[in-house]
Amino acid sequence: MNYLQQRRSALGQTLKANGLDAFLVTAAPNVTYLSSFTGDCSFYAALPKNNVIIGDARFEEQIKEECSDLDIVIRPHNKTTIEAAAETLTKSGAKAVGVEGNRITLGELEALKQFAPKITFVPVDGVVEKQRAIKDPGEVEKIRESVRVAERGFRMFVATLREADSEKDMVDALEGYVRRAGARSTSFPPIVAVGERGALPHAQPTARQLGEGSKLLVDWGADLLYKSDITRTLKSPFGTSPSRRNKMERVGYDFEKLYAVVLAAQNAAMAVIRHGVKAKDVDAAARKVIANAKFDKYPELRLGDFFTHGVGHGIGLEIHEAPRIRANSEDVLEAGMVVTIEPGIYIPGWGGIRIEDDVLITHDGCKILTTLSREPVTLNVG
Amino acid sequence: MNYLQQRRSALGQTLKANGLDAFLVTAAPNVTYLSSFTGDCSFYAALPKNNVIIGDARFEEQIKEECSDLDIVIRPHNKTTIEAAAETLTKSGAKAVGVEGNRITLGELEALKQFAPKITFVPVDGVVEKQRAIKDPGEVEKIRESVRVAERGFRMFVATLREADSEKDMVDALEGYVRRAGARSTSFPPIVAVGERGALPHAQPTARQLGEGSKLLVDWGADLLYKSDITRTLKSPFGTSPSRRNKMERVGYDFEKLYAVVLAAQNAAMAVIRHGVKAKDVDAAARKVIANAKFDKYPELRLGDFFTHGVGHGIGLEIHEAPRIRANSEDVLEAGMVVTIEPGIYIPGWGGIRIEDDVLITHDGCKILTTLSREPVTLNVG
Repeated sequence: MNYLQQRRSALGQTLKANGLDAFLVTAAPNVTYLSSFTGDCSFYAALPKNNVIIGDARFEEQIKEECSDLDIVIRPHNKTTIEAAAETLTKSGAKAVGVEGNRITLGELEALKQFAPKITFVPVDGVVEKQRAIKDPGEVEKIRESVRVAERGFRMFVATLREADSEKDMVDALEGYVRRAGARSTSFPPIVAVGERGALPHAQPTARQLGEGSKLLVDWGADLLYKSDITRTLKSPFGTSPSRRNKMERVGYDFEKLYAVVLAAQNAAMAVIRHGVKAKDVDAAARKVIANAKFDKYPELRLGDFFTHGVGHGIGLEIHEAPRIRANSEDVLEAGMVVTIEPGIYIPGWGGIRIEDDVLITHDGCKILTTLSREPVTLNVG
Repeated sequence: MNYLQQRRSALGQTLKANGLDAFLVTAAPNVTYLSSFTGDCSFYAALPKNNVIIGDARFEEQIKEECSDLDIVIRPHNKTTIEAAAETLTKSGAKAVGVEGNRITLGELEALKQFAPKITFVPVDGVVEKQRAIKDPGEVEKIRESVRVAERGFRMFVATLREADSEKDMVDALEGYVRRAGARSTSFPPIVAVGERGALPHAQPTARQLGEGSKLLVDWGADLLYKSDITRTLKSPFGTSPSRRNKMERVGYDFEKLYAVVLAAQNAAMAVIRHGVKAKDVDAAARKVIANAKFDKYPELRLGDFFTHGVGHGIGLEIHEAPRIRANSEDVLEAGMVVTIEPGIYIPGWGGIRIEDDVLITHDGCKILTTLSREPVTLNVG
């Protein structure tokens, strides 16, 4: 049985356990996971006697190419995919059909009920996402390749930087190099933040130039269907003199000292992460390091207040997926999960430092999939 | 009253009409429309006494910058945005709260009910989408600018093409030029299809080279928050001799004749579109031209079978939004809507021709926002 068959078989077990005789999968990454179809706007249905993909004519040739082991329903242009799905489910004789409670909208469910009035639809949450959280070896290899491509693109990017490049120039260049390295695109709009703009964890790129700050935060990844997600914060040779253009970076906190705190927090999370550990305990390990950090020069600085997000999340077909590694997570980590570990400190008016790596959780710890140095690096643009 | 206030006031009218005293908006483009916030992961709430945006610390500075006229709730990192929204709604004293039935998932609604047990949540479909369908003058100007940038990027792209460029090279180059022209990115992953691959309306880019086909289909747009969506199908000077590399283009249908049919279909749609017309009648006008087209040389060719999608859709904050212009649409068109008109013919083994332009619907017809020639053009790569 190959991995695709194993996924369908696992879904079949969930159906049995829930007393269902069919399941309609409507969320695109879950459809991809079960069907191998890499487009969107299509649904996957596990029916009593067969498995079907339901799509439209725009994707017909692609579906035939990618899903040769599935039955195929192509809806006519005057029907919605939901309507075609309702008809397919009705024809299959299914009586109790599971739907993705955490994905399907109220409107879609209403339409299903209208077009398939004899069927009872049962919302079940996170069925496919739970399967997807644990990667099979082929998926780990695909994420590893995505990391490799992201890193190759990043090295190209760093090699080309100039003092006059704006954040916008840099985001566009990074996009181009990650594609040149082999990705279909970046895995999300990259964040490139100069100087104190690194305090905005989701900064949009502006006209601010590389030379106008003393550090550069870059958060990016590659999309090769499977996705990677990495952050590096680099010291920049520019903007270090108060007389230069970095007037916005008002506060003189020491880059190396704060970097060391974030790196220690990341190492603490990496030291406790392993099969069987609670996700929130990994978050707490990193958070404790940052909360306890002290600087003689700035006794008022409570760094714990500046770590304002969870320490990590799963990656795979989506850039954010199960498990969630944060204080309010109930997830328990398992071998085969691939997650980010990304503590950060964000000080308004000074900037931010985040270090983010992708790791495979194992029975006795984790394997770091990223290979870029995590030590503090100063940009060489000479 | 500015346009933003008008939007909120219109939402207030809908609340009154539905007997609601608050409304929670969870879909990102709808949040943007009502708040001016351009990030994501945040909700907008129209409350009995004020309007609130609910987000997280990653976006705190951006929200403060973009939403100075709203009350702001930043959730702590150990609560979900849904939980924070439920608390905000409860504190406001609202009893009957509208939610977006066509957007909210079953799981989100369940969480709202759990965290705000005293509130009755009422799903209402497409409230904000309906407002958004009709653009105010500022929005039309933003779409026009998005069209201008997309066209500028396309001209840069066409000027740089080489015979050996692969579809993947071309997609990446187009992405770069659209950004260089001023967009934050393309408005969707561009389609660049060589030769017979144009028959896949949503073709993924491959290693197929420009020189390996006799035509090039390009479907792209620019994202400047507001989005454009254009398609041009160009005749290529390559692959025209059967002895060359275009073996896949087996069928010798005449490019100019088929192009003329698609252009006539587009003109037919443009001739009938205006305020008060049914969307499906615009689809029918284009469809009729294609269904009635005849070729003496290929009497068996029924072109109507090869126009496999609707003729258009609204554009704006999303690349596909209301109205839908297709056979099964119940939408009635109104002045101020901005839509694509994009008939196409897709012949497996030969390729596809699609011509897509963006138009503003007016009281007596439409204004074409795109300015690129719609006449058949042969690529000049000499």
